[in-house]
Amino acid sequence: MNRRDFAGLLAGLSAIASLAAKAQNAQPAGTATSVTCLIHPNMVMMDLVAPLTVFNLLLADIRLVAKSSDPVSTELGLPVVPTHTFATAPRQSTVLFVPGGLAGSVATMQDQSTLNYLAEAGAQSDWVTSVCTGSLLLAAAGLLDGYRATSHWYVKDLLAMAGAEVTDGRVVHDRNRLTGGGVTAGLDFGLSLAAQLADENMAKTIQLVLEYDPAPPFNAGTPETAGEELTSRVLERRNPLIEQARTALSGRQI
Amino acid sequence: MNRRDFAGLLAGLSAIASLAAKAQNAQPAGTATSVTCLIHPNMVMMDLVAPLTVFNLLLADIRLVAKSSDPVSTELGLPVVPTHTFATAPRQSTVLFVPGGLAGSVATMQDQSTLNYLAEAGAQSDWVTSVCTGSLLLAAAGLLDGYRATSHWYVKDLLAMAGAEVTDGRVVHDRNRLTGGGVTAGLDFGLSLAAQLADENMAKTIQLVLEYDPAPPFNAGTPETAGEELTSRVLERRNPLIEQARTALSGRQI
Repeated sequence: MNRRDFAGLLAGLSAIASLAAKAQNAQPAGTATSVTCLIHPNMVMMDLVAPLTVFNLLLADIRLVAKSSDPVSTELGLPVVPTHTFATAPRQSTVLFVPGGLAGSVATMQDQSTLNYLAEAGAQSDWVTSVCTGSLLLAAAGLLDGYRATSHWYVKDLLAMAGAEVTDGRVVHDRNRLTGGGVTAGLDFGLSLAAQLADENMAKTIQLVLEYDPAPPFNAGTPETAGEELTSRVLERRNPLIEQARTALSGRQI
Repeated sequence: MNRRDFAGLLAGLSAIASLAAKAQNAQPAGTATSVTCLIHPNMVMMDLVAPLTVFNLLLADIRLVAKSSDPVSTELGLPVVPTHTFATAPRQSTVLFVPGGLAGSVATMQDQSTLNYLAEAGAQSDWVTSVCTGSLLLAAAGLLDGYRATSHWYVKDLLAMAGAEVTDGRVVHDRNRLTGGGVTAGLDFGLSLAAQLADENMAKTIQLVLEYDPAPPFNAGTPETAGEELTSRVLERRNPLIEQARTALSGRQI
């Protein structure tokens, strides 16, 4: 699948494309932004698509990397076709990005070939980043040891088991690590990273194009605002997977 | 593609699945929520995925309907495979939903077979809904005549040409019409609709699972907050497509 062919069809985005090209032209030649996304089974589609929407408007060279070249399932039933496998993907890129999804992340954080790939790519990328439970994968690969970081509210405390300093905040930035909270934090994460990769005016232009002026109809996006009853209901069903994540991180503490 | 097979893989979402099943059990038997999404070439993936993430957590029966069974391109280069064509899709559903994307919407609003399908499905669905420039398609199909509605900020005024009463607001609700603003409004739209289809507690639980507690790093999501310079830059490049949309709606005013 040639992503550029598809991207070329979207004449409506040419405004931003042009702005992004100008921003990239300000960099030394040959240093166009590359974003390598780990694609793992049962990931949550929104964790991938929200940041990807921003990266795409930055005209980044986007790579979708998976263990094999087979289409990868998502929770929505919309499969994602990798552009590279661990065997063919470059290790170096501007941004290494890992989306989440609890069930998928818990399974994949126990897959040694994925952790090896992440460790190698993380060591050679300018930015090491995640949204939602994607940070469990970074942690399991040893990439958050000694860094401030966050994750989905229901697992973020586990990051401490891998040496991370669990930090409050929708998006946590520590040196070249940028980690976001659960699912929808991918928008705030993407715009924060866009400001780092290009500049604040570019990030604001993307925000305007995406009309990102949120107005949630309810105030229940965190355990504190949702209250104990709803939080308990969610945790009750998530706990078996959260315990699997805890065990997986314990096993790596040797 | 059997979406239920994929959905079944996501054990981590079983909490909400169970809650949704309970909510649906409160309805008369045989009235499970069905959501019919129009899939059109060059749509913006995020316009589809944000609402779909909410509909999926509601355990809705989701149909992806396109003109033919070929994979449909999106601006991200991730194609979407339809589950139905206009020939095979049922006209009746709980929700008819149309995502946007300016270039794609402008092309598709001039395709008579799509407008015919929308008019038929709209007349037989409990809810007629859109995000972003998807409302241009509803308007072109005659489905917003006499209704309050909105769209992406750069085209919403055009809806008046099709008899709509253009209304301020991130999500506009008028009888069985629910229309959202640009791209990221799909989250606020999805949660608003979830509260209507199930109840407020279900919508709040989904908000908590998606950790939707937005914290944009900048305040530039509207022309008013982004300011004249950034707004002009975006409009300058969008204007040719906006003019095409205007012409398309003029042609339908006969």
